[in-house]
Amino acid sequence: MTVTQRLYQAARPVWEACHAHPFVRGIGDGTLPLEQFRWFLLQDYRYLFDYARVFAYGVIKARDPELMRIFSVNLDAILGGEMRLHRAYMARLGIPEAQVFAVQPALANLSYTHYMLAVAAAGGPAEIVASLLACSWSYAEIGQRLADLPGAAEHPFYGEWVQGYAGADYQKTNAALVALMDTLAQDCSEADYQRLEEIFVSCSRYELGFWDMAWKREP
Amino acid sequence: MTVTQRLYQAARPVWEACHAHPFVRGIGDGTLPLEQFRWFLLQDYRYLFDYARVFAYGVIKARDPELMRIFSVNLDAILGGEMRLHRAYMARLGIPEAQVFAVQPALANLSYTHYMLAVAAAGGPAEIVASLLACSWSYAEIGQRLADLPGAAEHPFYGEWVQGYAGADYQKTNAALVALMDTLAQDCSEADYQRLEEIFVSCSRYELGFWDMAWKREP
Amino acid sequence: MTVTQRLYQAARPVWEACHAHPFVRGIGDGTLPLEQFRWFLLQDYRYLFDYARVFAYGVIKARDPELMRIFSVNLDAILGGEMRLHRAYMARLGIPEAQVFAVQPALANLSYTHYMLAVAAAGGPAEIVASLLACSWSYAEIGQRLADLPGAAEHPFYGEWVQGYAGADYQKTNAALVALMDTLAQDCSEADYQRLEEIFVSCSRYELGFWDMAWKREP
Amino acid sequence: MTVTQRLYQAARPVWEACHAHPFVRGIGDGTLPLEQFRWFLLQDYRYLFDYARVFAYGVIKARDPELMRIFSVNLDAILGGEMRLHRAYMARLGIPEAQVFAVQPALANLSYTHYMLAVAAAGGPAEIVASLLACSWSYAEIGQRLADLPGAAEHPFYGEWVQGYAGADYQKTNAALVALMDTLAQDCSEADYQRLEEIFVSCSRYELGFWDMAWKREP
Repeated sequence: MTVTQRLYQAARPVWEACHAHPFVRGIGDGTLPLEQFRWFLLQDYRYLFDYARVFAYGVIKARDPELMRIFSVNLDAILGGEMRLHRAYMARLGIPEAQVFAVQPALANLSYTHYMLAVAAAGGPAEIVASLLACSWSYAEIGQRLADLPGAAEHPFYGEWVQGYAGADYQKTNAALVALMDTLAQDCSEADYQRLEEIFVSCSRYELGFWDMAWKREP
Repeated sequence: MTVTQRLYQAARPVWEACHAHPFVRGIGDGTLPLEQFRWFLLQDYRYLFDYARVFAYGVIKARDPELMRIFSVNLDAILGGEMRLHRAYMARLGIPEAQVFAVQPALANLSYTHYMLAVAAAGGPAEIVASLLACSWSYAEIGQRLADLPGAAEHPFYGEWVQGYAGADYQKTNAALVALMDTLAQDCSEADYQRLEEIFVSCSRYELGFWDMAWKREP
Repeated sequence: MTVTQRLYQAARPVWEACHAHPFVRGIGDGTLPLEQFRWFLLQDYRYLFDYARVFAYGVIKARDPELMRIFSVNLDAILGGEMRLHRAYMARLGIPEAQVFAVQPALANLSYTHYMLAVAAAGGPAEIVASLLACSWSYAEIGQRLADLPGAAEHPFYGEWVQGYAGADYQKTNAALVALMDTLAQDCSEADYQRLEEIFVSCSRYELGFWDMAWKREP
Repeated sequence: MTVTQRLYQAARPVWEACHAHPFVRGIGDGTLPLEQFRWFLLQDYRYLFDYARVFAYGVIKARDPELMRIFSVNLDAILGGEMRLHRAYMARLGIPEAQVFAVQPALANLSYTHYMLAVAAAGGPAEIVASLLACSWSYAEIGQRLADLPGAAEHPFYGEWVQGYAGADYQKTNAALVALMDTLAQDCSEADYQRLEEIFVSCSRYELGFWDMAWKREP
């Protein structure tokens, strides 16, 4: 079994709880109230800035130029690319960027991002990728599963979101991160693997907490 | 109003919720079930190691020798001193230190400590002290309030805990940290103050979450 | 006087020593032996990877999205852009990239880059920009002064280097960094200014040491 | 061969250059001019504060409580203990502590300390100990070799310095750090070893540069 297969198995119960969460299901069947999505979108947009900072730690910790470039390209893609989807929805909902930064991040949001940031500050490239992977990979799987639901990808409001994460671009970026995890964890000791699993499962639990925070609109 | 008076006002509703929490009240009237306390003790013991790490960031970020020594003395006091209380209870409950490190930190624990660690990695001495202060100061206030309850400080099991935090040593150490916050935040801009308040209030909310986690024994 | 004007005055004697250095003058009059330039090029190429890491610290430490993007764009430009000039010369001299990473960085190189990295790890955005600025700005001035020498920009070998740093693109990027320094240091206290000057002058001395290391080919 | 034996072999030529340096020999035969020693003492005193910071990074990066305590005890010993020798000489020479912090660290001093700090920020416990070890161990060897010279340990002025580093306390502390290096590097890959050697040899070269800076009183 590869390292990412083991990680996937370890986090699976938490991921299934994400798939079953009313927020995620509500995107899939189009019943999610707009107010919940709006709350999520603002929090998720702020989340991405800290997520980008974790890639910046990767640039600092990487010891070879190739790996530095991988982290740097991802950083650039987030601050420019992935946010396109967010900005498209913000435009639809009439939210200017300035307003996003007037909103306080929810505690569940801070907890997740600062966990990743502290792990990245103390650890090396493998720990950094393990902390980034739960978000990237679980969204890829959520995108795919929702896209398989009849009509979900064509929904007038939520369809763009489903297509964004189910689409080839996003899937390819995520697959590269999964492959990178396996490369970096290759030949790691069992103790090192346990640390990666601890990080990956914790981040998966933070993912679940994030959906919950959005569903309940907890500040 | 001093900076710490402003911080205190801002966090007050959260602190009152801590004082009113069944876990804290259970220590005061001696009704807290031992299993809850045992859970709390193990989590709190692990917490202290990360709390010590935040002081270590203070040593790194401090720009003058006097401040470096303050952080260093506190770091040393935690890894030796404050843990005396914990170790006394662990002895009473028959928990060897090795067992503590076999226990996984709860997510609410990780969230709190990694928030402080990420703030400390990114910020300077004032932010570091703001992140440390909610724990130190709220325990000092809880200790005092509980010690005022008839019989609480003499309770055969929980009395030692109450005396530990109500005692002159702990109160003095905390008062020095409060004073340090005012010194470091002196002449800070309103924007800088807002950042300190954000940190202090977030940590106060993590304090409340910690009592809750212990009460419900959430993993 | 603006902050950058004060910094410039403080570092001026060191900068004049750079302009007068035989290595720099040798680029200007075309007499620099190829072996010295080759040594310099390899060291400078490695230098840029650490220089990029300092921008990554900027992404982490910046507290608003606009500033994060400025650091991120620069990081991306270095790992892709500025290295174009280096790679062009490496192609001319027949040096494959792999070889660069077989060369050990000289001690003067490590000293410079690790000084910036430690300053960036401990400080905030203003300190980070102060540490980055000596390199960027002194190269801009060297480029301009050399381009004013008759024939320097047309020299068959060194002309491309002179044009690279004298050119509008490089000058504009540097001017933006100078302006950013003034923005970030605006309203800073005199003690804060002194810290920025200490960093800027130290980095300027490291610049001089770098030319010297290249001239003497010190390992 | 143990890891520390390999490190010792790799740094040996640099260490022999330290032993042969006129500054070190001048302490041994008592001919070192007081002005050089005074310069060294002030720079070395400032050095120790950054050296202490590297131990603080160890506290942050260590993943088990035992290792955290080792770093913490050393940190405490430096900020209190080792500085006793420095303060004794400062008293003899009539230098108040405040004056030390009015002196700017020399560039060779900054280069050394910031190299260690950047290595510690980016690396883990093994890299941190490798960066700390060159100073600790080379002083232990210098102390021993000088103490073997007839009269050196009894010299009215320099004898106390020789006894300080040749003494059982210092030797024991250093031996523990050497043993810690071997423990942390146990089972490390050859690539990991190479990184440790690179750090250890670089720091040894910074040691030589420090003696040179003190001898020439370079600012």
